[in-house]
Amino acid sequence: MHSPDRGAIVELSRAEIDSFLRQQRIARLGCHLDGLTYVVPVIYAFDGASIFVVTTEGQKVSMMRSSPRVCVEVDEYDTSGSWRSVIAYGDYEELEGNDVEEALAALRDAFGRAAPAEPRGLGPGVVVFRIRLDELTGRSVAR
Amino acid sequence: MHSPDRGAIVELSRAEIDSFLRQQRIARLGCHLDGLTYVVPVIYAFDGASIFVVTTEGQKVSMMRSSPRVCVEVDEYDTSGSWRSVIAYGDYEELEGNDVEEALAALRDAFGRAAPAEPRGLGPGVVVFRIRLDELTGRSVAR
Repeated sequence: MHSPDRGAIVELSRAEIDSFLRQQRIARLGCHLDGLTYVVPVIYAFDGASIFVVTTEGQKVSMMRSSPRVCVEVDEYDTSGSWRSVIAYGDYEELEGNDVEEALAALRDAFGRAAPAEPRGLGPGVVVFRIRLDELTGRSVAR
Repeated sequence: MHSPDRGAIVELSRAEIDSFLRQQRIARLGCHLDGLTYVVPVIYAFDGASIFVVTTEGQKVSMMRSSPRVCVEVDEYDTSGSWRSVIAYGDYEELEGNDVEEALAALRDAFGRAAPAEPRGLGPGVVVFRIRLDELTGRSVAR
């Protein structure tokens, strides 16, 4: 463990990034198509390699199908002014079949009953996707 | 005031969006250049028209100077699963002179002593910018 100076920016190790991504619940996805950059919050689960998201058809899914390279940002601030953030990149992959079941299992592990229990119970327009994170950086400041 | 169904997505009015942006502190900026989409958290103040940010030279400033159209996302989740989010767009404007003083005044109004008191006290590499928000949408879900 390091004992950073108060206020100094510290790079997170890969283990610290993994732990942070497992602990957090909300990521902001950034995607881009035809001159429009779009940032949208999603509830996710992280299995150590990918984030998994259940969502519905809409602007972000439409954009990511056409332009799959996305940015994933997760942060945490506290009232003292300390913060941590992770910025990562990966490609949008829409899931089907067994992959959907694995994604829902990851979400159930993270959230318990809040995740849909049965893929066949997913309604029309529901989309399950994965973003395998292939570049990850993290920073923190302690105050 | 509306009394939405629990779990239904409700569009926020412009007044609700303004109030939310004044109350929150962290925005995620999304910018894009040469195939790279970048999302980064910033601490901001909102004056009813623009967000103001003090930062330092780096990736986001470099990208926004070349590609000024950005997305600004602000959200709040609570432990019950209720959430609000605002997604807005605007153009990056780097500030100088009196505009810097106005931006710092907006940040002092929002944060008190946490904002730099004197523009001439800003160190080398410090950048103050505004994003005038020209498209704003907001949504909430109550659970």
